[in-house]
Amino acid sequence: MKNNNKLIAAAIKLHETMPGKIGTKITIPFHNYHDLALAYTPGVASISQKIYQNPEDIYKYTIKNNTVGVITNGTAVLGLGDVGPGAALPVMEGKCLLLKKFANVNAFPICIDSKDSNTMIDIIEKIATSFGAINLEDIAAPECFTIEEALNKRLNIPIFHDDRHGTAIVIGAVLLNCCRLTSCKLSELTVCCAGLGSAGLETIRFLYQLGVRQIYGFDKNGVINQQNLHNFNPYIQTAVQNKIIQLADNSVKTLSDLIKGKKVFFGLSIGNLLTATDVKNMAHHPWVFPLANPVPEINPDIAKQAGAEIIGSGSNLYENQINNALIFPSILSAALKLQNVKIDTALKLTACHSLANLIPTSELKRDYIIPKIFNPHLNEQVVKTILEKYHKW
Amino acid sequence: MKNNNKLIAAAIKLHETMPGKIGTKITIPFHNYHDLALAYTPGVASISQKIYQNPEDIYKYTIKNNTVGVITNGTAVLGLGDVGPGAALPVMEGKCLLLKKFANVNAFPICIDSKDSNTMIDIIEKIATSFGAINLEDIAAPECFTIEEALNKRLNIPIFHDDRHGTAIVIGAVLLNCCRLTSCKLSELTVCCAGLGSAGLETIRFLYQLGVRQIYGFDKNGVINQQNLHNFNPYIQTAVQNKIIQLADNSVKTLSDLIKGKKVFFGLSIGNLLTATDVKNMAHHPWVFPLANPVPEINPDIAKQAGAEIIGSGSNLYENQINNALIFPSILSAALKLQNVKIDTALKLTACHSLANLIPTSELKRDYIIPKIFNPHLNEQVVKTILEKYHKW
Repeated sequence: MKNNNKLIAAAIKLHETMPGKIGTKITIPFHNYHDLALAYTPGVASISQKIYQNPEDIYKYTIKNNTVGVITNGTAVLGLGDVGPGAALPVMEGKCLLLKKFANVNAFPICIDSKDSNTMIDIIEKIATSFGAINLEDIAAPECFTIEEALNKRLNIPIFHDDRHGTAIVIGAVLLNCCRLTSCKLSELTVCCAGLGSAGLETIRFLYQLGVRQIYGFDKNGVINQQNLHNFNPYIQTAVQNKIIQLADNSVKTLSDLIKGKKVFFGLSIGNLLTATDVKNMAHHPWVFPLANPVPEINPDIAKQAGAEIIGSGSNLYENQINNALIFPSILSAALKLQNVKIDTALKLTACHSLANLIPTSELKRDYIIPKIFNPHLNEQVVKTILEKYHKW
Repeated sequence: MKNNNKLIAAAIKLHETMPGKIGTKITIPFHNYHDLALAYTPGVASISQKIYQNPEDIYKYTIKNNTVGVITNGTAVLGLGDVGPGAALPVMEGKCLLLKKFANVNAFPICIDSKDSNTMIDIIEKIATSFGAINLEDIAAPECFTIEEALNKRLNIPIFHDDRHGTAIVIGAVLLNCCRLTSCKLSELTVCCAGLGSAGLETIRFLYQLGVRQIYGFDKNGVINQQNLHNFNPYIQTAVQNKIIQLADNSVKTLSDLIKGKKVFFGLSIGNLLTATDVKNMAHHPWVFPLANPVPEINPDIAKQAGAEIIGSGSNLYENQINNALIFPSILSAALKLQNVKIDTALKLTACHSLANLIPTSELKRDYIIPKIFNPHLNEQVVKTILEKYHKW
């Protein structure tokens, strides 16, 4: 708690002294009237005319080439919930910072003051010109599904929702590497997921695409079983229909019931949901990933003491920090380079395998299951793998 | 023409090699997990909570503090007209570049894909969170009037429309200094304005605020006189009713008729509108400011040969380059510092006098009527004068 107060004080001081964390910079020589004449009037008119004549030229001459719009309405910010567009801004700035740091991508935060999906879709569609890709962020489910789906139809630039897909891909890479290390098979894993918001449901879907076949779900509405299914939203019901989520027995009522005998737990829910006893009741040598932020579902050290073979959390204070920052900058960077691509399952699977394979099998360890965020080769490697797949490398 | 082709080729090369002209940069130390924990999760959550509890804290902790949204729909881009949001982007980037260069203000271009005023207003209102001020740009009249007026009512951040107010303020400073140099009085000047779009009409209004009392207008609909008044939009008709614009005689049909005997011409219209004979027919020692871009209403050299005492144009190839870049960065910078201020007539008059007074009377000359764009003291001086007026210096 003391450390936490210290961290909060340092975060406040940082934001007070350097508000915004990001800024703009001039990327051309600009010192005299000649420079002015080229970058602004009269020279810039010729660039406008070129784009007017051939709209695709916008990629050749403008920031659309390498700029992401990081867009939210602030309805599901971190663990804070619906704090609105203003309170979401520092988080979006953080995201822009990560895009710059890890993939040298320009990004600008747009916080939209609307909770209505149609309004969000209309606005994003109409302001997309400056952006070569859009990263949706911290938008509540199920609205975020509708918005992403509609934008993918209406816009030809890549759309990514990091909370969903970034999370899913990184967890996917974690499970790939856990299996590689222990010679387990994805198809034989039994997985219990707590939290069925945008991140949880997408992770379940993605793990299914990777080959996981026994995934069970739990959230504030309880355990997903036949009796209880009507309490869940249509997206979850569809995942059940499609056998992506397995129904627990109707007798299974609580997370403690559900987790019994399962090999894998991942949580994208709320803090302090899981007990040491729950972990002890899991399968032999369980893998436990309490990813809720800032307070995890269970303290990873406690999970380990309770028998977890592999742990991972959102925090860098424990082994195996699992963070979207491992993948979203590279995915968006690759998508910008591909232009007009859809970030579909194939692209995401490629990114996931590339991320996992960044650690050679010989170096994989229980406490080194996923690459480090500051790994200097990560971005180049993932971008390269994606571009190769599209024959653009 | 040859020089022009050379300039176009250089502009294209510049934009091809360094697309965007601006980019984002990281403004905090960001090298390790500690930095990540402060700037992003978990540290950033405390900033979000602070803003959630006290919305005004957004200025303290985020880019809203020093960031302008440069917003257009591309309906009146430079001299090119309605080329749309994509073709407008390189111009908006140029504007962002100038804000950074001359006032160290962050700015990001937003090109909205809509010609409908209400849609524009709604979208700008809903995406304003990231911005401490908004600069409207290259939006056709009269929609731009409606949009600016509505945003000033709906948003509490400063709204500026550079095409209108920037132009008006710089021309105002030019006339102030012409009068200072020649001991003429603003109230005795006879002024002929060609081009009654957003820039022309606003300049007329602003010159009236400065004390000019005899202003006549001309545009593609002809000369403003009683007989012809119904051909002009309601904004112009109101300016006539309020005696801001004088009615010419009904016998005055052409620009050549209208300009006869006038002391001052300024053009915000189209190229090659004015002849040497027109200038010869003006009052003794006329002042001629053909500001159309890229081709002026008359070549300034020809105007001079025809007897113009003082000339000024948009180009740096002639004496007295008159460019909005002289004022809009400083006005927006001051407005960002004042927060929630309206950029009203008083503020604009202050800026105008400050810009004019940057040249001491002893240094004023016919070919040095207005400060140079790259004057290193300009921004500080203008911002200081504005803040002093608001007792914030």
